[in-house]
Amino acid sequence: MVTEHQPPPPDQDDLDRLRLIRTEGVGPVAYRRLLTRYSSASESLAALPALAFAGGRPAPPIIPSREAAAREFLELARLGGRMIFFGDPAYPPLLAMLDDAPPAIAVLGDASLLSRRAVALVGGRNASANGQRMAETLAADLAQSVVVVSGLARGIDAAAHAGALQTGKTVAAIAGGLDIPYPPENAALQRRIAENGALVTEAPLGTEPQARHFPRRNRIIAGLSLGVVIVEAALRSGSLITARLAQEVGRELFAVPGSPLDPRSRGSNDLIRQGAHLTEAAQDVLDNLPDHPSREGLARSPLFARDMPAGLAEPPPRWAEPTESVADLAKARKQVIDLLGSSPTAVDDVVRRCQFSASAIMAVLLELELAGRIETLPGSRVALLPETAL
Amino acid sequence: MVTEHQPPPPDQDDLDRLRLIRTEGVGPVAYRRLLTRYSSASESLAALPALAFAGGRPAPPIIPSREAAAREFLELARLGGRMIFFGDPAYPPLLAMLDDAPPAIAVLGDASLLSRRAVALVGGRNASANGQRMAETLAADLAQSVVVVSGLARGIDAAAHAGALQTGKTVAAIAGGLDIPYPPENAALQRRIAENGALVTEAPLGTEPQARHFPRRNRIIAGLSLGVVIVEAALRSGSLITARLAQEVGRELFAVPGSPLDPRSRGSNDLIRQGAHLTEAAQDVLDNLPDHPSREGLARSPLFARDMPAGLAEPPPRWAEPTESVADLAKARKQVIDLLGSSPTAVDDVVRRCQFSASAIMAVLLELELAGRIETLPGSRVALLPETAL
Repeated sequence: MVTEHQPPPPDQDDLDRLRLIRTEGVGPVAYRRLLTRYSSASESLAALPALAFAGGRPAPPIIPSREAAAREFLELARLGGRMIFFGDPAYPPLLAMLDDAPPAIAVLGDASLLSRRAVALVGGRNASANGQRMAETLAADLAQSVVVVSGLARGIDAAAHAGALQTGKTVAAIAGGLDIPYPPENAALQRRIAENGALVTEAPLGTEPQARHFPRRNRIIAGLSLGVVIVEAALRSGSLITARLAQEVGRELFAVPGSPLDPRSRGSNDLIRQGAHLTEAAQDVLDNLPDHPSREGLARSPLFARDMPAGLAEPPPRWAEPTESVADLAKARKQVIDLLGSSPTAVDDVVRRCQFSASAIMAVLLELELAGRIETLPGSRVALLPETAL
Repeated sequence: MVTEHQPPPPDQDDLDRLRLIRTEGVGPVAYRRLLTRYSSASESLAALPALAFAGGRPAPPIIPSREAAAREFLELARLGGRMIFFGDPAYPPLLAMLDDAPPAIAVLGDASLLSRRAVALVGGRNASANGQRMAETLAADLAQSVVVVSGLARGIDAAAHAGALQTGKTVAAIAGGLDIPYPPENAALQRRIAENGALVTEAPLGTEPQARHFPRRNRIIAGLSLGVVIVEAALRSGSLITARLAQEVGRELFAVPGSPLDPRSRGSNDLIRQGAHLTEAAQDVLDNLPDHPSREGLARSPLFARDMPAGLAEPPPRWAEPTESVADLAKARKQVIDLLGSSPTAVDDVVRRCQFSASAIMAVLLELELAGRIETLPGSRVALLPETAL
């Protein structure tokens, strides 16, 4: 498939951005921090080796060449897709509100759908016939008013996309590359969505989806949507992770109830117990769908602060340049490493427990991430990586 | 079946109380108002004809003879049952909190169960196999800690009683007489409950249950219980009426969720949406079961006010003797009739909209009820009866 409006060829800055994004150790938070600090991707790339070295990395990180980046653009354009960078006018505004919004997304199909009012509908893979029917009906009814977002998984997700295609538009956020049909039985559905809706991913072309990619996919599903509807989620299921991410970024939560005798509804029933809107029909969603994510979610996103009313518009101190001496930053680095462990710790907790400024801690975290010593996780959490990962 | 402790033979006051209760037009509220005003059943009976005449009744009401009352006691004793009057030590204390608590209940089986910590479990008659399994399991688990109350109807009620009998005690509130098996297919269950639990009713022996008896049965179910669990209730079902009654008297509400595709769960899902505790297992009920009905429910009951802390203990003015002149009471009577219609009106609204004292309005309502001109309904509501009813 070829898009009607061929995207313009990438300029030098686009190539450098993509190189930065594809550099080992540069996650979404590090990427944004680098661009804030060094004003361009090219200058960020130049600063990278020294920062990674300061963070304790013995060898400099491997930065892809401009040629490699140009090749990725070309292959994406041949497939009919386009790359949208954080900061581009076409970048979905709701997704941009996330602290760890993807630095770039690859889109196949109608990219404008990503910026429309959307509701996510997700649930279990081993769904019951009733659950799939429910998802399909709900999605068909919702798609008359909003874009329906889901994850193209087996079961509930597939039923949601199929239902939405009957009456309106749907967006599938996938974990792998745009050119990889996954799961295999949804290959035809994936093609139909690319033609009549949109496919979106953070992964480069050719990426086979693996377990570690799914949390990032779930983040995009929640990030694109004003509300998330859960149909049939067992306890400790992936759908509940999407629900938690959605709540953390101020999105409205909805859940379809089910019989307590069916373990596939335990998670969704539990969400209702915790305050999700009990949902029996599309109207239950539409009646409770806000025009914007809730303030609580917004307040957590430093980038969105620009558009916030006066008083909330001050950029948080953590994004400012640290004023500490080099010796103090070295002390801060040691303190941060001592505080962290292999299970995720909230960045706010790290800032609170250290005696250095928030901006010093953030600078140190950036260096440690670039050095591959820590990992930044959704919801502003960080975890120490095992030393062997270097 | 014969009870181990044969109840003492009725004295004159017992006979007069029963005569008053069985007099046409004397509902639970009128009965209590009469006893408050005339201090004994015998004096109330003497005052009845004049009051009914003042209310506009052309012929005096038909009062059963002492012989008829004695016969009812005898027949009940032969069956092995006993009569418990409002005010007796054996009268269930939670039931006594209702504004319109039954003046007397007939009990077969272990009457002490009616005063134990109890949870009601009710639901639809055309229940699904899953719904019945759910009710049976919930009841069996609950009966290990509390008495399980239900209404002996087909479907959920029967499953609840059967489940409770497996592990503990159950009470069936029925709409007809203790000697009438109803519904026929539950006859064996009704016998088992009389032998291992308790059957309770307001209706005299020999009463075949009719539609109009069921709201009074539902009131007893809610009144005996600290909480009511709804399993599979369709919209506008009898179980929802029990739920509303329960809420009005401060009892905790619980509902088992179900698939929105099954109309038999619409009512219970709706209760959850309105704040009932989402219930998947007995623990959900036990964790949220209070030690007493909530204050909101208590405060509405003037009789319970005796046991309330100082400040709330004042008897409300509506129970005091009116000080208005006979001419003013006649005016009040006309005003009240003009205000009422065939659909139920809250007594509080009548009091608010009339220019007479609350005690005058209550005296007038008593006369009108005794005259058969109005009907007092659960939840302190009154409705005008058609003139042809006289």
